[in-house]
Amino acid sequence: MRLISLSRADIAACFGMDDAIAAMETAFSELSRGGIEAPLRTALVSKEGTILYKPAFSPALDLFCVKIVSVFQGNAKLGEEVTAGTIILNDAKTGLPLAIMDAGYLTALRTGAATGLATRLLSDENAAEAALFGTGGQAFCQLEAMLAVRDLRTVHVFSRRPENARKFCEAHAARFPGCLLVPATGPEVLSRCGIVTTASTSPSPVFDDKALAPRVHINAVGSLGAHRSEIPVATLARARLVVDQRAACLKEAGEIISVLNTGVSAESLGLVELGELVGKPRDASAPVTVFKSVGNAAQDLVCAAAVYRIALGRGAGKPVEL
Amino acid sequence: MRLISLSRADIAACFGMDDAIAAMETAFSELSRGGIEAPLRTALVSKEGTILYKPAFSPALDLFCVKIVSVFQGNAKLGEEVTAGTIILNDAKTGLPLAIMDAGYLTALRTGAATGLATRLLSDENAAEAALFGTGGQAFCQLEAMLAVRDLRTVHVFSRRPENARKFCEAHAARFPGCLLVPATGPEVLSRCGIVTTASTSPSPVFDDKALAPRVHINAVGSLGAHRSEIPVATLARARLVVDQRAACLKEAGEIISVLNTGVSAESLGLVELGELVGKPRDASAPVTVFKSVGNAAQDLVCAAAVYRIALGRGAGKPVEL
Repeated sequence: MRLISLSRADIAACFGMDDAIAAMETAFSELSRGGIEAPLRTALVSKEGTILYKPAFSPALDLFCVKIVSVFQGNAKLGEEVTAGTIILNDAKTGLPLAIMDAGYLTALRTGAATGLATRLLSDENAAEAALFGTGGQAFCQLEAMLAVRDLRTVHVFSRRPENARKFCEAHAARFPGCLLVPATGPEVLSRCGIVTTASTSPSPVFDDKALAPRVHINAVGSLGAHRSEIPVATLARARLVVDQRAACLKEAGEIISVLNTGVSAESLGLVELGELVGKPRDASAPVTVFKSVGNAAQDLVCAAAVYRIALGRGAGKPVEL
Repeated sequence: MRLISLSRADIAACFGMDDAIAAMETAFSELSRGGIEAPLRTALVSKEGTILYKPAFSPALDLFCVKIVSVFQGNAKLGEEVTAGTIILNDAKTGLPLAIMDAGYLTALRTGAATGLATRLLSDENAAEAALFGTGGQAFCQLEAMLAVRDLRTVHVFSRRPENARKFCEAHAARFPGCLLVPATGPEVLSRCGIVTTASTSPSPVFDDKALAPRVHINAVGSLGAHRSEIPVATLARARLVVDQRAACLKEAGEIISVLNTGVSAESLGLVELGELVGKPRDASAPVTVFKSVGNAAQDLVCAAAVYRIALGRGAGKPVEL
């Protein structure tokens, strides 16, 4: 058997945010039309951490994939990544392995790209200022995604620790010369932001509903867990709610569950899936929109498939003989 | 991330039948004492075939593993293997990947090694003749396993097509100079065989109960499926039945189910697990013993762990940078 290995650097060299956003159009459309089979993931728990096996199958792409994700908090002390992962891609015509690739960068990229796609489909085309909450592992790709789809003049960066916001802006300013990256001076700047992306680890809302601009699109990326919500329930209650996958978000997304907990029924939430909006003209009727994503195997599979094809075309990666 | 890749040739060069039988002692002991966690496997089915993801975790070895097995009948026409597989090993202390290895040879080897261990624990020490049914992909390792634990003078090879038996004997004669490998002349030779191993694809018994020697140990390896049995129910009814895993064999092993179907209760079958016999002196009280195995993730995990450790010690394999 012969497959190729694709490192983080290989992937970064051949697959950027625009490619990832294009892949997300396919992924979310396929997800909404039921075109991707993603069985329950399997979790194994050792003393030190958890490993997850997430398989998926796309008949349209003729590919199987499994993402192996590990979350080991103690790795930080060892100088290793807390969250790491690999993806194994197999040909659905022969079953044979095609590629093993790093999944860390790809996961951050596809999570950013979902924000990019949602922002393209839902935010005001003329939005000039945006806010980013959080400066952790997901933050850079979230920023990159917003800038890939909107010509933003200023992005205000919020962090629980102002020092982190300053460092983040300094580290990435040069990368986006057309846009001013500034540590947020306070919540009052939100009134000018047409786009807000929250990618924090906060268990509770990171802004006040009243601080928002009259027209705003919000991407809620962080706070994984049914009991965590970065967005005030007042905002969620008046917003048009767009999700990656209805069933998953009703079960896992703290933001959606926080609204259900106020007594609203799942039906009257009027959840729309992002994939249902792909290819349609933007509906600007809702002044406030929230995109909530818990992430799914379709994103990983379609992204890995695109990476594999591009890498193969360029002769990237290294051969692995088994 | 940095792992190593181990090809079929790498594995064959550093890990033989004796190593595999030693690994099976650990695997079956661990399996019987509940020391290995093996959640339900996940199957994905494409038009052309099926892929299975089989995860497992050993706290004692501090390893996670997943075996990815594909069964694609059409591959024969393409010159590719019908059944192929890879194993990914992850460190249970950090979650990080350690190795990706070919699983094809290793699966045949560990399946043979289970027969080797069962034959060592159950067959007459002085057995001089044995019978092997089947000349397919599993046959060689089954033969190798019997010869690893008993000094056999003659092995009679049975095949539905006599031509295949002749070819098999010719192909492997040189490998075992101390043993005569002969195409079986007829069922009458069974009366001299102290060991019988069936590794055919036959859905129905491959010999007659009356043809057996008075004292015989049988390894039933082939005929996977609840409605298939290579062994006559008359033999099974009078034999001491040893299995790899009680629960799995009651559900999946056609041989065991064929006895249940005669009205015998699961309890009165008196199934013993192979792991329960490890480390104990051989109990020669039963004239006829049958070892039935449906295969399990513990075998894969313990074998892959042993291969990895030996390979690492010898600097075998190639680095894969992710």
